[in-house]
Amino acid sequence: MTMQDAAAARPAGRPRSEKAEKAIVEATLDLIGEGMGISELSIEAIAARAGVGKTTIYRRWSNKEDLVVTALAALKAPVPPLAGESVRGDLVTMIDQMRTESGHVRTRCVMNIAMSESDRYPHLFDKFRQLAIEPRRAAMRAVLERGIANGELLPDLDPEMAMAMLSGTVIWYTKWGQAEHDAGLAERIVDQVLSGIAP
Amino acid sequence: MTMQDAAAARPAGRPRSEKAEKAIVEATLDLIGEGMGISELSIEAIAARAGVGKTTIYRRWSNKEDLVVTALAALKAPVPPLAGESVRGDLVTMIDQMRTESGHVRTRCVMNIAMSESDRYPHLFDKFRQLAIEPRRAAMRAVLERGIANGELLPDLDPEMAMAMLSGTVIWYTKWGQAEHDAGLAERIVDQVLSGIAP
Repeated sequence: MTMQDAAAARPAGRPRSEKAEKAIVEATLDLIGEGMGISELSIEAIAARAGVGKTTIYRRWSNKEDLVVTALAALKAPVPPLAGESVRGDLVTMIDQMRTESGHVRTRCVMNIAMSESDRYPHLFDKFRQLAIEPRRAAMRAVLERGIANGELLPDLDPEMAMAMLSGTVIWYTKWGQAEHDAGLAERIVDQVLSGIAP
Repeated sequence: MTMQDAAAARPAGRPRSEKAEKAIVEATLDLIGEGMGISELSIEAIAARAGVGKTTIYRRWSNKEDLVVTALAALKAPVPPLAGESVRGDLVTMIDQMRTESGHVRTRCVMNIAMSESDRYPHLFDKFRQLAIEPRRAAMRAVLERGIANGELLPDLDPEMAMAMLSGTVIWYTKWGQAEHDAGLAERIVDQVLSGIAP
């Protein structure tokens, strides 16, 4: 998700100052990434870190939760351009994006910390999912459904299961393995998920 | 992991009081599960919650990190008994254990919060992995290697990739799906990982 997308997700108010907005979002991510939980986070602390006044923040976001949604969504890149030539190729592109994202230490810290509070902020995380996760899921689902329709994938495949296999495997590697330095990982994952592990 | 196993992992000291030890471990898990991070956690707070004196804790654990390792390890059940009749059956047993564990709300909260601090406590998490994760990984690797040897699995299969596919898929469902109420999920995951998603 680009800053523009994240900004577009809130109701339009006064003319935007992209620079202030970026500073506020970065300050929010820095504070979370340094270990400040969402509950400890305050508009005061974010304003101080960003070097802006509190009113500058309140002009753009009516509350802390909305600002955190924008900040978390800003960590997620937009769906990458897909060649559309083969289902395999498009899946590799998507899985490789998930692999490379995990190499950003701050992103990993922020998402870990944020996820640890997801039970306490269900509304915040619903919004985050809608804004940042669902577009990716929809894009992957569309690729899988194309493969089911054109015979590249099994005709009775459950797309949710295929998504869990592809995304779950790469996330497992980003947690326990050396995913960020393994440029061929996405291809190996996709090929093994396609072919299965039994003869 | 049973309390006995967790206790056995520390050097033997004075005669154990299982009851006090259980109260201390439970107090530690409750405090973490309620949102107190490892850095905020104190031996004072744990002692107060457990209704024991600080010396009772220090008699068993020389520092907070060792106590947290025991507490986190206590959340993980031992490797389940495996029938050993088929690789498929044993994998279903293991994946189903991961599925049912995710239904415990406190376990999920504690692990989310603990993982959010894993970058700050690498030594603690190395110990936790050795004590609670590695025995499971070793058991699954053994089942996979049996299948590679006896022809139930592909002869050139990378066991690490197979583990990532199986564990990653079920963990994905526990995060984003309704895994705890879906009794047939483990079988569906194992069968789809075995057969793959392409014709």
